[in-house]
Amino acid sequence: MQQWASDWYFMNAALLEAQRAQSIGEVPIGAVIVHDGIIIGRGHNVREQSQLATKHAEMIAIERACETIGSWRLEETTLYVTLEPCMMCSGAIMQSRIPRVVYGAADLKGGTVRSLYRLLEDERLNHFVRVEAGLMEETCSSQLTHFFRTIRARKKREKQQRRQHIDSTSS
Amino acid sequence: MQQWASDWYFMNAALLEAQRAQSIGEVPIGAVIVHDGIIIGRGHNVREQSQLATKHAEMIAIERACETIGSWRLEETTLYVTLEPCMMCSGAIMQSRIPRVVYGAADLKGGTVRSLYRLLEDERLNHFVRVEAGLMEETCSSQLTHFFRTIRARKKREKQQRRQHIDSTSS
Repeated sequence: MQQWASDWYFMNAALLEAQRAQSIGEVPIGAVIVHDGIIIGRGHNVREQSQLATKHAEMIAIERACETIGSWRLEETTLYVTLEPCMMCSGAIMQSRIPRVVYGAADLKGGTVRSLYRLLEDERLNHFVRVEAGLMEETCSSQLTHFFRTIRARKKREKQQRRQHIDSTSS
Repeated sequence: MQQWASDWYFMNAALLEAQRAQSIGEVPIGAVIVHDGIIIGRGHNVREQSQLATKHAEMIAIERACETIGSWRLEETTLYVTLEPCMMCSGAIMQSRIPRVVYGAADLKGGTVRSLYRLLEDERLNHFVRVEAGLMEETCSSQLTHFFRTIRARKKREKQQRRQHIDSTSS
């Protein structure tokens, strides 16, 4: 399979993980780790459900991949993730020696791969990551935009209902 | 208890965690998280034992602390760690909203709090951490130096033994 076709295929798998997060009310971010054409780790954001600050999609995918191959070194793998990694996840990518990262949407507020920093490409560190930014950017981005729009609409509706309830009981 | 006395006390608890790592052959790094004068999370480095790239002392302490209080927000806590946090752990500190970090030894090669970056004090991010660097620096640092010296000596001894074995079988 051509590189672009395989990247597209695995980013779709990451998007599926993001949908899983959304289905349980979590911010839809998903990740997969691929070695030799096979997914060896999957993860989606479960921060609210687990109430653990560390449970980002990439972190879970990295731990699952380490378990699959029985090593903390994820050499010759690619991480696909729907949103630009934060500081913690960039660090975990470096720690696990993942050589290639492909991400979809940019995170202008907290992204540390291109937006705020270029943490994966720091030549002072003992590992350097090849980065592919913006694959299926629109799809990844619109999934997040749609999620937050739905949340805002629901909150607005709940606020209106509360106000109506107060008006009806006070009149 | 005065701040300095309490800091000293909890850094000793982190050093004890580091000793636990050393006792199982791991690089001796330890961390504790304190809320209202009580340790709510402890952790020591178990990367080799677990074969998980994410299992740094701080990460484990953060997860334990989140479990203890049932929330991913570790507000009003202090993290004590024997070595300057790496990129991943700095990110986890930001993600869990820890407001204060006290560390011992500097990590000139991978530290991201003062050595390579000042990631905990980036005003563009939605969280800012107060940092106390170099508490009990010499004790924390010599624990690591001693560990690596012992490892190097053991490897040298093993190499000599292998050479002696080859010499004796070939003569």
